[in-house]
Amino acid sequence: MAVSTIQIGILGCAEIARKVSRAIPLSQTATLYAVGSRSIEKAQKFAADNGFPATAKVYGSYEEVLDDPNVDAVYVPLPTSLHIKWAVLAAQKKKHLLLEKPVGLNIEEVDVILAACEANGVQFMDGTMWMHHPRTAKMREFLSDAKQFGELKSVHTCFTFTADQNFLENDIRVKPDLDGLGALGDVGWYCIRGILWAADYELPKSVIALRNPVFNKAGVIISCGASLLWEDGKVGTFHCSFLTNLTMDLTAVGTKGTLHLHDFIVPFEEKKASFISAVESGFKELATGWEPKPSEHTVTTDIPQEALMVREFCKLVGSIKNEGAKPEKKWPTLSRKTSLVLDAVKTSIEKGFEAVEIVS
Amino acid sequence: MAVSTIQIGILGCAEIARKVSRAIPLSQTATLYAVGSRSIEKAQKFAADNGFPATAKVYGSYEEVLDDPNVDAVYVPLPTSLHIKWAVLAAQKKKHLLLEKPVGLNIEEVDVILAACEANGVQFMDGTMWMHHPRTAKMREFLSDAKQFGELKSVHTCFTFTADQNFLENDIRVKPDLDGLGALGDVGWYCIRGILWAADYELPKSVIALRNPVFNKAGVIISCGASLLWEDGKVGTFHCSFLTNLTMDLTAVGTKGTLHLHDFIVPFEEKKASFISAVESGFKELATGWEPKPSEHTVTTDIPQEALMVREFCKLVGSIKNEGAKPEKKWPTLSRKTSLVLDAVKTSIEKGFEAVEIVS
Repeated sequence: MAVSTIQIGILGCAEIARKVSRAIPLSQTATLYAVGSRSIEKAQKFAADNGFPATAKVYGSYEEVLDDPNVDAVYVPLPTSLHIKWAVLAAQKKKHLLLEKPVGLNIEEVDVILAACEANGVQFMDGTMWMHHPRTAKMREFLSDAKQFGELKSVHTCFTFTADQNFLENDIRVKPDLDGLGALGDVGWYCIRGILWAADYELPKSVIALRNPVFNKAGVIISCGASLLWEDGKVGTFHCSFLTNLTMDLTAVGTKGTLHLHDFIVPFEEKKASFISAVESGFKELATGWEPKPSEHTVTTDIPQEALMVREFCKLVGSIKNEGAKPEKKWPTLSRKTSLVLDAVKTSIEKGFEAVEIVS
Repeated sequence: MAVSTIQIGILGCAEIARKVSRAIPLSQTATLYAVGSRSIEKAQKFAADNGFPATAKVYGSYEEVLDDPNVDAVYVPLPTSLHIKWAVLAAQKKKHLLLEKPVGLNIEEVDVILAACEANGVQFMDGTMWMHHPRTAKMREFLSDAKQFGELKSVHTCFTFTADQNFLENDIRVKPDLDGLGALGDVGWYCIRGILWAADYELPKSVIALRNPVFNKAGVIISCGASLLWEDGKVGTFHCSFLTNLTMDLTAVGTKGTLHLHDFIVPFEEKKASFISAVESGFKELATGWEPKPSEHTVTTDIPQEALMVREFCKLVGSIKNEGAKPEKKWPTLSRKTSLVLDAVKTSIEKGFEAVEIVS
């Protein structure tokens, strides 16, 4: 491993931290350096179960991870309600920050976190793994190709999975005091990011939640949707839910082309991923079929998207640490835009499905 | 050909009538018996170009087709604004009626047409061809399977195609005096039918148009969308447009399964058509991929869906003609439900995107 390997500390032992723990060495740019939990036994077990080297530091608190001078960066998969405290503290301790989504419970919290990172010169990135898959870059090329795709006019995303009764009553993601954003924050985050990605991150002018959101007994959203409207007439819609079969669709329709995929957040397979594109689709004589038909494109990757996320994060951290570079603003900007729209959807639901203007 | 072959007369020489003219003999249940146009030359050319037998009757008016006692049934592909006059007259002349969609300019017109058919004991069917593809029946089996698909919770459809400038200014489908429903009546019809089909034709409780519809200079809708809401929490959304690449998506998400297809209205190929179904989808350990993955199913057909439509229509007409059966109510019922929702979308647009209750 290169000398410039970034030493990462993990705060908490969430399920998703297991995936990222696997990704850290796979990235070939980072080391599983430390893990902290409120329970030292839990941290020890986590380190043992998840490939931490024998030399790794195991702490019985989050503070100790942040106080370890050899920790370059932290990965924070804590419940959303704890983000503001621990993300801000991490930034103040000059730890670069890979923070799970959703970033905060509302845009004000997000802004506090991002301001802390900026003030302390640390890199911020959220844990939206699919951004880093080479397929995403390939699809972006297609969407940006004026001759192939033209101008985006509509985009629809959907991310749902079937949670069991235990999840719907007890999971962190449906507890008002832990993750008050529920399905909107967990799966809706990706739907919103997918739409913004397709729109090349141009913010919509307004957002209107779809009626019929579903809440659990504690009042947390477990299913909802929204429409997003742009000044130029573009329309986006999404549906997210904990109540239906695992589904992750993205369809982007442009004046000349169409993009389809059914696994945009987690590809069906780890080392190859496909998408379907259609360019100037038309009908055969008498509309007895299509000519040309859409075509499938496959993109392979040696290492999984979560390891590519870690690699990109560590590349930026390394530049700051070793070359005195400034933090890359792209990632906090995308997090903020996603949070802004998410916040507007929540506000629209609270205001009885009114249109909510997006003011950046 | 069987003795009971149904003799069909066509009113007008629309482009879509060419496709149906090909389908009539392919159905093996019907004969291209007559065609009428306001111009006898146009009718002659149409008959010659579209495989009408030498014995076929060619008329210089629609009335003459309706007055021909040997015409059992008529196919009416006239502009929507002319439907009420000619469909009602056809029914009064005891001609069974295969009518192009949209059925009427509003639900009142649809009701007048359907009442005329009922009063005169003639079969009514609209020209929604994809209803008759064997793939549609196969997909219906999947959606109706409580173990595989579970309960429908959300459905999204999209039908768009890129019309050129000439179409957007001059086509029948964008002329307020010919087809005032524009893209909503033409492509939106299919989106709405697709959603109702997925919901097993249960009508939504209310409809809310999405903001940002686009109108042409004459005030006709050329792009719009809506959300449909059911009492039980189901949600449907659609987008239809003349402004973007040919796209026809249907995604239905149930508690246990998911259905995807990208060519639900006109299959990519004439003799085989596929759909993708997913059942109890889940992730592999650490969500590094899906297990099980969705699977593709292909359905073949010897004759195209439009010929199967003619065959179904003629089967019903034959039963009435030869066996004294009553008209099948299924088809007018589906037409009416589709029209009812379409009407509500238009009303919602006119009322500034208010929720419009569906009252059947």
